[in-house]
Amino acid sequence: MIILGIDPGYAIVGYGALRFERGQYRAIGFGAITTEAGMDFSARLQYIYDNMMEMIRQCRPDAVAIEKLYFHTNQKTVIHVAEARGIILLAAQKSGVPIFEYTPLQVKTAVTGYGRAHKPQVMEMTTRLLKLKEVPKPDDTADALAVAICHAHASGSRFRYQMLQKKKEG
Amino acid sequence: MIILGIDPGYAIVGYGALRFERGQYRAIGFGAITTEAGMDFSARLQYIYDNMMEMIRQCRPDAVAIEKLYFHTNQKTVIHVAEARGIILLAAQKSGVPIFEYTPLQVKTAVTGYGRAHKPQVMEMTTRLLKLKEVPKPDDTADALAVAICHAHASGSRFRYQMLQKKKEG
Repeated sequence: MIILGIDPGYAIVGYGALRFERGQYRAIGFGAITTEAGMDFSARLQYIYDNMMEMIRQCRPDAVAIEKLYFHTNQKTVIHVAEARGIILLAAQKSGVPIFEYTPLQVKTAVTGYGRAHKPQVMEMTTRLLKLKEVPKPDDTADALAVAICHAHASGSRFRYQMLQKKKEG
Repeated sequence: MIILGIDPGYAIVGYGALRFERGQYRAIGFGAITTEAGMDFSARLQYIYDNMMEMIRQCRPDAVAIEKLYFHTNQKTVIHVAEARGIILLAAQKSGVPIFEYTPLQVKTAVTGYGRAHKPQVMEMTTRLLKLKEVPKPDDTADALAVAICHAHASGSRFRYQMLQKKKEG
Protein backbone atom coordinates (compact mmCIF):
# COMPACT_ATOMS: atom_id res chain seq x y z
CA MET A 1 0.00 0.00 0.00
CA ILE A 2 1.30 3.46 -0.92
CA ILE A 3 0.36 6.29 1.42
CA LEU A 4 0.86 9.96 0.59
CA GLY A 5 1.07 12.12 3.71
CA ILE A 6 0.48 15.85 3.40
CA ASP A 7 1.22 18.77 5.71
CA PRO A 8 -0.97 21.54 4.29
CA GLY A 9 0.06 25.17 3.85
CA TYR A 10 0.16 27.89 1.21
CA ALA A 11 3.86 28.82 1.40
CA ILE A 12 5.05 25.25 2.01
CA VAL A 13 3.11 22.04 1.42
CA GLY A 14 5.09 19.16 2.89
CA TYR A 15 4.61 15.75 1.28
CA GLY A 16 5.91 12.28 1.97
CA ALA A 17 5.04 9.04 0.22
CA LEU A 18 5.73 5.70 1.80
CA ARG A 19 5.13 2.06 1.00
CA PHE A 20 3.72 0.02 3.85
CA GLU A 21 3.92 -3.75 3.50
CA ARG A 22 3.97 -6.55 6.06
CA GLY A 23 4.39 -4.06 8.88
CA GLN A 24 7.38 -2.39 7.24
CA TYR A 25 7.55 1.25 6.14
CA ARG A 26 9.74 2.49 3.33
CA ALA A 27 9.89 6.13 2.25
CA ILE A 28 9.58 6.32 -1.52
CA GLY A 29 9.67 10.07 -1.98
CA PHE A 30 9.32 13.23 0.06
CA GLY A 31 9.81 16.96 -0.21
CA ALA A 32 7.81 20.18 -0.34
CA ILE A 33 5.83 22.24 -2.82
CA THR A 34 6.72 25.88 -2.16
CA THR A 35 5.21 29.10 -3.45
CA GLU A 36 6.80 32.53 -3.43
CA ALA A 37 5.47 35.16 -1.01
CA GLY A 38 5.31 37.69 -3.86
CA MET A 39 2.87 35.59 -5.90
CA ASP A 40 -0.80 36.42 -6.14
CA PHE A 41 -2.63 34.23 -3.61
CA SER A 42 -4.92 32.61 -6.18
CA ALA A 43 -1.89 31.86 -8.37
CA ARG A 44 -0.30 30.13 -5.36
CA LEU A 45 -3.44 28.01 -4.98
CA GLN A 46 -3.32 27.05 -8.66
CA TYR A 47 0.37 26.17 -8.40
CA ILE A 48 -0.33 23.92 -5.41
CA TYR A 49 -3.30 22.28 -7.15
CA ASP A 50 -1.39 21.57 -10.37
CA ASN A 51 1.59 20.16 -8.48
CA MET A 52 -0.61 18.02 -6.24
CA MET A 53 -2.43 16.59 -9.27
CA GLU A 54 0.88 15.78 -10.96
CA MET A 55 2.34 14.24 -7.80
CA ILE A 56 -0.71 12.01 -7.26
CA ARG A 57 -0.56 10.96 -10.93
CA GLN A 58 3.08 9.95 -10.54
CA CYS A 59 2.99 8.40 -7.07
CA ARG A 60 -0.43 6.66 -7.45
CA PRO A 61 -1.17 6.49 -3.74
CA ASP A 62 -3.83 4.18 -2.29
CA ALA A 63 -4.59 6.80 0.33
CA VAL A 64 -3.91 10.45 1.12
CA ALA A 65 -3.37 11.15 4.83
CA ILE A 66 -3.62 14.72 6.12
CA GLU A 67 -3.72 16.36 9.51
CA LYS A 68 -6.94 17.91 10.76
CA LEU A 69 -6.77 21.67 10.98
CA TYR A 70 -7.92 23.41 14.10
CA PHE A 71 -9.22 26.86 14.60
CA HIS A 72 -6.59 27.66 17.20
CA THR A 73 -3.70 26.29 15.11
CA ASN A 74 -2.28 29.65 14.10
CA GLN A 75 -4.76 32.47 14.22
CA LYS A 76 -2.84 34.70 11.84
CA THR A 77 -2.55 32.30 8.93
CA VAL A 78 -5.28 29.72 9.55
CA ILE A 79 -7.66 31.12 6.91
CA HIS A 80 -5.08 30.91 4.12
CA VAL A 81 -3.87 27.49 5.32
CA ALA A 82 -7.47 26.25 5.23
CA GLU A 83 -7.95 27.68 1.72
CA ALA A 84 -4.86 25.77 0.56
CA ARG A 85 -6.01 22.65 2.42
CA GLY A 86 -9.30 22.78 0.49
CA ILE A 87 -7.26 22.71 -2.74
CA ILE A 88 -5.34 19.65 -1.55
CA LEU A 89 -8.54 17.80 -0.61
CA LEU A 90 -9.94 18.68 -4.05
CA ALA A 91 -6.86 17.33 -5.84
CA ALA A 92 -7.11 13.99 -3.97
CA GLN A 93 -10.87 13.82 -4.54
CA LYS A 94 -10.54 14.62 -8.28
CA SER A 95 -7.88 11.90 -8.54
CA GLY A 96 -10.19 9.37 -6.90
CA VAL A 97 -7.87 8.75 -3.94
CA PRO A 98 -9.53 8.21 -0.54
CA ILE A 99 -8.64 10.86 2.08
CA PHE A 100 -7.99 10.10 5.75
CA GLU A 101 -7.73 12.81 8.38
CA TYR A 102 -5.93 12.54 11.69
CA THR A 103 -5.66 14.76 14.73
CA PRO A 104 -2.20 15.86 15.96
CA LEU A 105 -2.79 13.60 18.99
CA GLN A 106 -3.34 10.58 16.74
CA VAL A 107 -0.18 11.35 14.74
CA LYS A 108 1.98 11.79 17.84
CA THR A 109 0.60 8.63 19.43
CA ALA A 110 1.11 6.59 16.26
CA VAL A 111 4.70 7.71 15.78
CA THR A 112 6.01 7.92 19.35
CA GLY A 113 3.43 6.03 21.39
CA TYR A 114 2.88 9.19 23.42
CA GLY A 115 0.21 11.80 22.61
CA ARG A 116 2.03 14.66 24.28
CA ALA A 117 5.36 14.07 22.55
CA HIS A 118 7.23 17.18 21.47
CA LYS A 119 7.91 17.98 17.84
CA PRO A 120 11.63 16.96 17.89
CA GLN A 121 10.70 13.55 19.34
CA VAL A 122 8.10 13.01 16.60
CA MET A 123 10.65 13.95 13.95
CA GLU A 124 13.33 11.74 15.45
CA MET A 125 11.01 8.73 15.57
CA THR A 126 9.74 9.39 12.02
CA THR A 127 13.35 9.39 10.81
CA ARG A 128 14.11 6.16 12.68
CA LEU A 129 10.96 4.31 11.59
CA LEU A 130 11.75 5.12 7.96
CA LYS A 131 15.47 4.33 8.45
CA LEU A 132 16.47 7.70 7.03
CA LYS A 133 19.98 9.06 7.61
CA GLU A 134 18.77 12.44 8.84
CA VAL A 135 15.57 14.27 9.74
CA PRO A 136 13.86 15.32 6.48
CA LYS A 137 13.81 19.08 5.87
CA PRO A 138 11.84 21.31 5.99
CA ASP A 139 9.81 20.39 9.09
CA ASP A 140 6.70 20.26 6.90
CA THR A 141 8.17 17.26 5.05
CA ALA A 142 8.87 15.40 8.28
CA ASP A 143 5.32 16.24 9.45
CA ALA A 144 3.90 14.85 6.20
CA LEU A 145 5.82 11.58 6.68
CA ALA A 146 4.57 11.37 10.27
CA VAL A 147 0.92 11.58 9.21
CA ALA A 148 1.59 8.93 6.53
CA ILE A 149 3.01 6.64 9.25
CA CYS A 150 -0.09 7.38 11.33
CA HIS A 151 -2.32 6.18 8.50
CA ALA A 152 -0.18 3.06 7.98
CA HIS A 153 -0.54 2.34 11.67
CA ALA A 154 -4.31 2.93 11.65
CA SER A 155 -4.90 0.86 8.52
CA GLY A 156 -2.60 -1.86 9.88
CA SER A 157 -4.75 -2.07 13.01
CA ARG A 158 -7.87 -2.20 10.88
CA PHE A 159 -6.31 -4.95 8.79
CA ARG A 160 -5.32 -6.98 11.85
CA TYR A 161 -8.77 -6.45 13.33
CA GLN A 162 -10.45 -7.69 10.13
CA MET A 163 -8.18 -10.76 10.08
CA LEU A 164 -9.06 -11.48 13.68
CA GLN A 165 -12.77 -11.15 12.94
CA LYS A 166 -12.42 -13.53 9.98
CA LYS A 167 -10.59 -16.06 12.13
CA LYS A 168 -13.35 -15.86 14.74
CA GLU A 169 -16.08 -16.25 12.12
CA GLY A 170 -14.21 -19.08 10.34
CA MET B 1 -18.86 44.59 -17.71
CA ILE B 2 -20.19 41.37 -16.14
CA ILE B 3 -19.41 40.87 -12.45
CA LEU B 4 -19.94 37.59 -10.64
CA GLY B 5 -20.34 38.07 -6.88
CA ILE B 6 -19.81 35.11 -4.60
CA ASP B 7 -20.71 34.49 -0.97
CA PRO B 8 -18.51 31.52 -0.05
CA GLY B 9 -19.59 28.52 2.01
CA TYR B 10 -19.61 24.72 1.89
CA ALA B 11 -23.33 24.07 2.48
CA ILE B 12 -24.48 27.12 0.47
CA VAL B 13 -22.45 29.14 -2.03
CA GLY B 14 -24.46 32.25 -2.96
CA TYR B 15 -23.84 33.69 -6.42
CA GLY B 16 -25.09 36.70 -8.30
CA ALA B 17 -24.09 37.94 -11.74
CA LEU B 18 -24.80 41.47 -12.83
CA ARG B 19 -24.10 43.61 -15.83
CA PHE B 20 -22.79 47.08 -15.03
CA GLU B 21 -22.91 49.64 -17.82
CA ARG B 22 -23.02 53.44 -17.79
CA GLY B 23 -23.63 53.47 -14.06
CA GLN B 24 -26.56 51.07 -14.32
CA TYR B 25 -26.74 47.66 -12.70
CA ARG B 26 -28.79 44.78 -14.04
CA ALA B 27 -28.97 41.36 -12.41
CA ILE B 28 -28.49 38.69 -15.07
CA GLY B 29 -28.63 35.60 -12.87
CA PHE B 30 -28.43 34.63 -9.24
CA GLY B 31 -28.97 31.68 -6.96
CA ALA B 32 -27.04 29.25 -4.82
CA ILE B 33 -24.97 26.09 -5.16
CA THR B 34 -25.97 23.82 -2.29
CA THR B 35 -24.46 20.59 -0.99
CA GLU B 36 -26.10 18.02 1.26
CA ALA B 37 -24.94 17.71 4.86
CA GLY B 38 -24.70 13.93 4.46
CA MET B 39 -22.13 14.17 1.66
CA ASP B 40 -18.45 13.47 2.23
CA PHE B 41 -16.71 16.83 2.72
CA SER B 42 -14.27 16.36 -0.18
CA ALA B 43 -17.16 15.39 -2.43
CA ARG B 44 -18.86 18.65 -1.44
CA LEU B 45 -15.70 20.54 -2.45
CA GLN B 46 -15.63 18.78 -5.81
CA TYR B 47 -19.31 19.53 -6.38
CA ILE B 48 -18.72 23.23 -5.64
CA TYR B 49 -15.65 23.32 -7.90
CA ASP B 50 -17.38 21.66 -10.84
CA ASN B 51 -20.43 23.92 -10.54
CA MET B 52 -18.28 27.05 -10.20
CA MET B 53 -16.29 26.12 -13.32
CA GLU B 54 -19.51 25.52 -15.28
CA MET B 55 -21.09 28.75 -14.04
CA ILE B 56 -18.04 30.82 -14.99
CA ARG B 57 -17.99 29.13 -18.40
CA GLN B 58 -21.62 30.07 -18.99
CA CYS B 59 -21.67 33.55 -17.45
CA ARG B 60 -18.21 34.64 -18.74
CA PRO B 61 -17.64 37.30 -16.07
CA ASP B 62 -15.00 40.03 -16.43
CA ALA B 63 -14.42 39.85 -12.68
CA VAL B 64 -15.22 37.67 -9.70
CA ALA B 65 -15.94 39.62 -6.49
CA ILE B 66 -15.81 37.86 -3.14
CA GLU B 67 -15.90 38.92 0.48
CA LYS B 68 -12.77 38.66 2.59
CA LEU B 69 -13.03 36.02 5.28
CA TYR B 70 -12.06 36.85 8.82
CA PHE B 71 -10.85 34.66 11.58
CA HIS B 72 -13.65 35.77 13.90
CA THR B 73 -16.38 35.34 11.26
CA ASN B 74 -17.83 32.13 12.71
CA GLN B 75 -15.41 30.18 14.80
CA LYS B 76 -17.28 26.89 14.47
CA THR B 77 -17.38 26.71 10.69
CA VAL B 78 -14.61 29.07 9.54
CA ILE B 79 -12.11 26.29 8.65
CA HIS B 80 -14.58 24.54 6.33
CA VAL B 81 -15.78 27.86 4.86
CA ALA B 82 -12.14 28.78 4.12
CA GLU B 83 -11.53 25.38 2.51
CA ALA B 84 -14.52 25.95 0.23
CA ARG B 85 -13.41 29.52 -0.44
CA GLY B 86 -10.03 28.20 -1.63
CA ILE B 87 -11.91 26.04 -4.15
CA ILE B 88 -13.83 29.07 -5.42
CA LEU B 89 -10.64 31.13 -5.83
CA LEU B 90 -9.09 28.20 -7.71
CA ALA B 91 -12.07 27.95 -10.08
CA ALA B 92 -11.83 31.68 -10.93
CA GLN B 93 -8.04 31.48 -11.28
CA LYS B 94 -8.23 28.38 -13.51
CA SER B 95 -10.81 30.18 -15.67
CA GLY B 96 -8.53 33.20 -16.02
CA VAL B 97 -10.99 35.61 -14.38
CA PRO B 98 -9.49 38.30 -12.13
CA ILE B 99 -10.54 38.09 -8.49
CA PHE B 100 -11.35 41.10 -6.29
CA GLU B 101 -11.79 40.85 -2.54
CA TYR B 102 -13.74 43.26 -0.35
CA THR B 103 -14.20 43.65 3.37
CA PRO B 104 -17.72 43.58 4.85
CA LEU B 105 -17.23 47.31 5.59
CA GLN B 106 -16.53 48.05 1.93
CA VAL B 107 -19.60 46.07 0.83
CA LYS B 108 -21.92 47.80 3.30
CA THR B 109 -20.57 51.23 2.43
CA ALA B 110 -20.87 50.60 -1.32
CA VAL B 111 -24.46 49.38 -1.09
CA THR B 112 -25.96 51.61 1.62
CA GLY B 113 -23.44 54.43 1.99
CA TYR B 114 -23.05 53.45 5.63
CA GLY B 115 -20.40 51.02 6.92
CA ARG B 116 -22.36 50.01 9.99
CA ALA B 117 -25.58 49.23 8.15
CA HIS B 118 -27.44 46.15 9.34
CA LYS B 119 -27.97 43.09 7.15
CA PRO B 120 -31.66 43.80 6.34
CA GLN B 121 -30.73 47.33 5.17
CA VAL B 122 -28.00 45.94 2.89
CA MET B 123 -30.44 43.42 1.45
CA GLU B 124 -33.14 46.01 0.95
CA MET B 125 -30.77 48.37 -0.88
CA THR B 126 -29.35 45.52 -2.99
CA THR B 127 -32.90 44.64 -4.06
CA ARG B 128 -33.70 48.27 -4.91
CA LEU B 129 -30.45 48.96 -6.80
CA LEU B 130 -31.07 45.91 -8.98
CA LYS B 131 -34.81 46.76 -9.32
CA LEU B 132 -35.81 43.29 -8.16
CA LYS B 133 -39.34 42.62 -6.97
CA GLU B 134 -38.25 40.96 -3.75
CA VAL B 135 -35.14 40.26 -1.70
CA PRO B 136 -33.31 37.32 -3.31
CA LYS B 137 -33.32 34.12 -1.26
CA PRO B 138 -31.38 32.58 0.42
CA ASP B 139 -29.49 35.38 2.20
CA ASP B 140 -26.26 34.06 0.65
CA THR B 141 -27.58 35.02 -2.78
CA ALA B 142 -28.41 38.56 -1.68
CA ASP B 143 -24.94 38.80 -0.09
CA ALA B 144 -23.34 37.67 -3.36
CA LEU B 145 -25.20 40.37 -5.29
CA ALA B 146 -24.14 42.98 -2.71
CA VAL B 147 -20.45 42.16 -3.17
CA ALA B 148 -20.93 42.32 -6.96
CA ILE B 149 -22.44 45.81 -6.56
CA CYS B 150 -19.46 46.73 -4.38
CA HIS B 151 -17.07 45.76 -7.16
CA ALA B 152 -19.12 47.68 -9.75
CA HIS B 153 -18.94 50.70 -7.48
CA ALA B 154 -15.18 50.32 -6.91
CA SER B 155 -14.39 49.78 -10.58
CA GLY B 156 -16.71 52.67 -11.50
CA SER B 157 -14.77 54.97 -9.18
CA ARG B 158 -11.51 53.75 -10.67
CA PHE B 159 -12.90 54.41 -14.16
CA ARG B 160 -14.03 57.96 -13.27
CA TYR B 161 -10.70 58.62 -11.58
CA GLN B 162 -8.79 57.49 -14.66
CA MET B 163 -10.98 59.70 -16.87
CA LEU B 164 -10.33 62.66 -14.57
CA GLN B 165 -6.59 62.05 -14.67
CA LYS B 166 -6.66 61.85 -18.47
CA LYS B 167 -8.61 65.15 -18.63
CA LYS B 168 -6.05 66.79 -16.35
CA GLU B 169 -3.15 65.45 -18.38
CA GLY B 170 -4.84 66.41 -21.66
